Amino acid sequence: MRIDEIRDPSFLKDMTLEEIKDLCKDIRTFLLNSISKTGGHLSSNLGVVEISTMLLKIFDAPKDKIIYDVGHQCYVHKILTGRAKDFHTLRQSGGIAGFQKKHESIYDCWEAGHSSTSLSAALGMALSRDAMKEEHHVIAVIGDGALNNGMAFEALNHIGELRNNLIIILNDNNMSISRPVGGFTKVLSSIRTSDLYIESKSDIRNSLMKSKNGKILLEKLIKLRRTIKKKLFKDSLFYDFGVDYLGPIDGHNVYELERALQMAKTHHGPILVHVLTDKGKGYKAAEEDKNGDWHGVGPFEVESAKKLGGVKDGYVSYSQAVTEYLVKRGESDEKLFVITPAMIAGSQLQEFFAKYPERSIDCGIAEEHAVTLGAGLANGGMHPFVSIYSSFMQRAYDQINHDVARMNLPVVFGVDRAGIVGEDGETHHGVFDISFLRSIPNVVIAHPKDYAELHGMLETGFNSHCPFFVRYPRGNTKRMDVSTLPNVPVGTFEILHKVDIPKLVVFTYGEETVRMVEIVREQELPVIFVNARYLKPLDEAMLADLLQYDCDWLCVEDGMLIGGLGEALLGYVNDRGVSKRVHRRGITDHFVRHASMSELRNEENISGEALLEAIKELIA
Amino acid sequence: MRIDEIRDPSFLKDMTLEEIKDLCKDIRTFLLNSISKTGGHLSSNLGVVEISTMLLKIFDAPKDKIIYDVGHQCYVHKILTGRAKDFHTLRQSGGIAGFQKKHESIYDCWEAGHSSTSLSAALGMALSRDAMKEEHHVIAVIGDGALNNGMAFEALNHIGELRNNLIIILNDNNMSISRPVGGFTKVLSSIRTSDLYIESKSDIRNSLMKSKNGKILLEKLIKLRRTIKKKLFKDSLFYDFGVDYLGPIDGHNVYELERALQMAKTHHGPILVHVLTDKGKGYKAAEEDKNGDWHGVGPFEVESAKKLGGVKDGYVSYSQAVTEYLVKRGESDEKLFVITPAMIAGSQLQEFFAKYPERSIDCGIAEEHAVTLGAGLANGGMHPFVSIYSSFMQRAYDQINHDVARMNLPVVFGVDRAGIVGEDGETHHGVFDISFLRSIPNVVIAHPKDYAELHGMLETGFNSHCPFFVRYPRGNTKRMDVSTLPNVPVGTFEILHKVDIPKLVVFTYGEETVRMVEIVREQELPVIFVNARYLKPLDEAMLADLLQYDCDWLCVEDGMLIGGLGEALLGYVNDRGVSKRVHRRGITDHFVRHASMSELRNEENISGEALLEAIKELIA
Repeated sequence: MRIDEIRDPSFLKDMTLEEIKDLCKDIRTFLLNSISKTGGHLSSNLGVVEISTMLLKIFDAPKDKIIYDVGHQCYVHKILTGRAKDFHTLRQSGGIAGFQKKHESIYDCWEAGHSSTSLSAALGMALSRDAMKEEHHVIAVIGDGALNNGMAFEALNHIGELRNNLIIILNDNNMSISRPVGGFTKVLSSIRTSDLYIESKSDIRNSLMKSKNGKILLEKLIKLRRTIKKKLFKDSLFYDFGVDYLGPIDGHNVYELERALQMAKTHHGPILVHVLTDKGKGYKAAEEDKNGDWHGVGPFEVESAKKLGGVKDGYVSYSQAVTEYLVKRGESDEKLFVITPAMIAGSQLQEFFAKYPERSIDCGIAEEHAVTLGAGLANGGMHPFVSIYSSFMQRAYDQINHDVARMNLPVVFGVDRAGIVGEDGETHHGVFDISFLRSIPNVVIAHPKDYAELHGMLETGFNSHCPFFVRYPRGNTKRMDVSTLPNVPVGTFEILHKVDIPKLVVFTYGEETVRMVEIVREQELPVIFVNARYLKPLDEAMLADLLQYDCDWLCVEDGMLIGGLGEALLGYVNDRGVSKRVHRRGITDHFVRHASMSELRNEENISGEALLEAIKELIA
Repeated sequence: MRIDEIRDPSFLKDMTLEEIKDLCKDIRTFLLNSISKTGGHLSSNLGVVEISTMLLKIFDAPKDKIIYDVGHQCYVHKILTGRAKDFHTLRQSGGIAGFQKKHESIYDCWEAGHSSTSLSAALGMALSRDAMKEEHHVIAVIGDGALNNGMAFEALNHIGELRNNLIIILNDNNMSISRPVGGFTKVLSSIRTSDLYIESKSDIRNSLMKSKNGKILLEKLIKLRRTIKKKLFKDSLFYDFGVDYLGPIDGHNVYELERALQMAKTHHGPILVHVLTDKGKGYKAAEEDKNGDWHGVGPFEVESAKKLGGVKDGYVSYSQAVTEYLVKRGESDEKLFVITPAMIAGSQLQEFFAKYPERSIDCGIAEEHAVTLGAGLANGGMHPFVSIYSSFMQRAYDQINHDVARMNLPVVFGVDRAGIVGEDGETHHGVFDISFLRSIPNVVIAHPKDYAELHGMLETGFNSHCPFFVRYPRGNTKRMDVSTLPNVPVGTFEILHKVDIPKLVVFTYGEETVRMVEIVREQELPVIFVNARYLKPLDEAMLADLLQYDCDWLCVEDGMLIGGLGEALLGYVNDRGVSKRVHRRGITDHFVRHASMSELRNEENISGEALLEAIKELIA
């Protein structure tokens, strides 16, 4: 059968397990060919081929609800539910999404791009089912990394209390996104390798049965065995939570999977099926990857495992640019700690982690803890740097507000993937951080225009003794000489182009600034062009100065209009009793879809070109 | 010794444990007398008298760092560190805070008002100590309720991995704020009541030693016993996490406490001391309280346990007003579920929980899970209502954004304690929610002016099929006839007072609106007075209409100015190319201190009186 001819998963019901094994091979080949062209999440999907296939064989989707935690491990599910034919459009504009999407298919019953929401969702759906006296299964597939997150713990705890029927497939690849962390992971490992199971030999048994004391002892022994078995092997930690346990089983063995899933299907109460898988299964480079380099990938050559594209000579990713600052700073600043919630690879922190392991902390997918740990370190006199994706930082809003900002603790945040991120789509765009940070007292929010300014801002951040957020986008920037760091004082803008009688004052920030101001200069446009590099506090001295010009202002930003820089400027102007129009470009009140970064920036009217167009329109 | 003459805890070092017992009695009497006059957190502090005292006796604060989770259980710590003399000012303007405050005392090394941050903070401080090669202890005191929170789990997990020296005092009163929840609580209970400890009787032992098989068996038995003891009793769940375990011990027995704390003091690696306490210990009414009625209290008579004050005839708290709607709705809406993160008493949900237990969910201090559980229920077709304090909702920002709003799921949120909350202070004011919610697509934010409008809005909320937030303040409102529910369509303001030629248009919302508009009417002030009851979406039709009047606007709100209604109005006006001044009153860019609600509202210029004054100034 051709993979791209699959219309729905009903054909699986009639397949033998041997046939399923062949199918899984074909799916792996399909995944490799497809992802090597489009890019996407490779390793995790290679790891769940058998799980996803067997779930659709044993259960009756869409009646039974299958929820993929995070959702980037849903490719096989998509393939088997009729979307293989669209896989060449994966993550592209108008194409299928890299995550579960309800509007794509009735087989997608939940959506997520952030980790560890599946257990709460599954419990909610199980409670709904039971309240309506419906009969179907609710199944959450969650990785070991995601289970380390606090939210999953809260849900597990509650699931164990309520005891509604619910199936949790723990996809344990012992790696999460980069590496496993925490005592909890150790528990999983101990179950994996456990050899404590003590059999009472039959000869001992027989000799004991001969005496009264022996019989009593035997009974006790049997009771002990049962307890130990229950506690140490089968049930372990999950049993402590009130969740029944089955496993561990080989997640690439369809026979074992069938047995386990059939058992889970008839089980009363919540049950966790512990499935061991190899991330990247079937593709050597991904199997051997220990750093998460094959987690999310761009296009690559399947044969040679050579990644295509790559960074232009003289350019580095913004993430790498930050790491270069940190590595340098680490030489003299012994109090510098770098914290990441499972994003060593994503934020390219490898060099720092290799050079300063004792001051490098990967705390797993635990954004809340990561931020308050940073607060604790700052409280202890250290200089913590919390590296975190803008979108994932949302998980730690309260910790930023209540722990860091309220105590005005000097934590420097590297807000990676700020702004539009492109193909990952709705759940991953870093477009809310300015809006939710700006109303928090004590914080500084900065966004550099280039490599050197980034370095200067980080330096300012560490010298500022307050919560300091430096945002930077996905993508690359030109490496610059930073032997002398530029001075970027808190709350200062920078005028990049000036004319005596401007027809417009333009405020913007970030990576398009440099390119755009060059065009403005070339075309001798009658505008003052401001690099508004501090979103908070504003450069009030400069603003007061700019108020003198009798012309409109234009503000172009990479996040939500509501709560953004434009509103801040409006507030400034209005509070001074000045009447001035502030034209605002930014993301209007909607969630931004997935497509390439440039497509989306054009679509949202926040590209450099859109900015130029707006200028020309407004000065016409 | 007089309690209020204590200057620092050094005197404890020379006290015998018998003397400490007497001291603890005196502290309890002092607490009761003091809190009965000022109000405050009673039960939790009565429960930790011996723990707090023994910590200061055994350890060397302030060198050793003692962190109280949440911090409302820090009264005894404050008393013994020289602040008893100020206890008559507890939670009052200029007086001592109800939580740990660094500026109050060198003995307060951390601050919190939200739950479950102490373990992350303690780990951060322990890492700082070890990086600097300093020598002191870091001790976190955390309740069983707080340990149920995901953030505490993340930290515990990490503590178990890193294994730095760190002492966790688990203050297990088996009650948290209202009742204990979750599988995790069951584990604690099983340890409490465990009688599984199997002793191998000496006669059996002797008979076994006689044969070879018997000896083998005995060895096995001893090994089993050790394993069981380790797994089931001493170490349990915490051992699984890599954290050593000591306990459970009686938290009111100073001898047991001394032994345990001395052991913990010399222990290598992280250790959790499991201490069993009775919340409210020493005060009968509080000991017997199962609902959390004596958790946070106003003034009361110690002898009779009669609470003073209370609600005026014909008035109810806003929380109760919401419950009255929910109880009524529950009769016909079988899909209604009410979820609270451990705030049954605080949000006065008792009546609903008693009447509809099968649709009532207290998921413990687990705000993240609570919100996504709501999303899961909505996704399953139910009608979830998530009751949550504005300040605690901060913990669930990402769940609101990523799970509820992104999928546009119909979850109705009751945002309790919105605005200034008074005596609980900085960590508890509900002043950020408008700012962080407003930039999230799909959400509706509403704030009623009175009882009837509250009911009407809730009705609108359940009919709106989108994320719907109804805010209401701490305090009381006049009960009104709601046999016919007022119609409060989404995105509609209401003009309460109108003149033909206004000198000002006033926008405000909430509980002062009614009182103020009466004064405006009486004094025939030349203003249009608008009840801006939807913070999002705005009533654009009405705003367009109001633009025609050539006068300034005034906006008065109960939250942060940054990101608030005023900025929204400015954006509206500006985007229409109209030049109009919008005068804004709200909370400026700082954290609001503790004092009474009315004092703070005056201080922040957002009281009814401040509004009237602003009006008069602006129309002068």
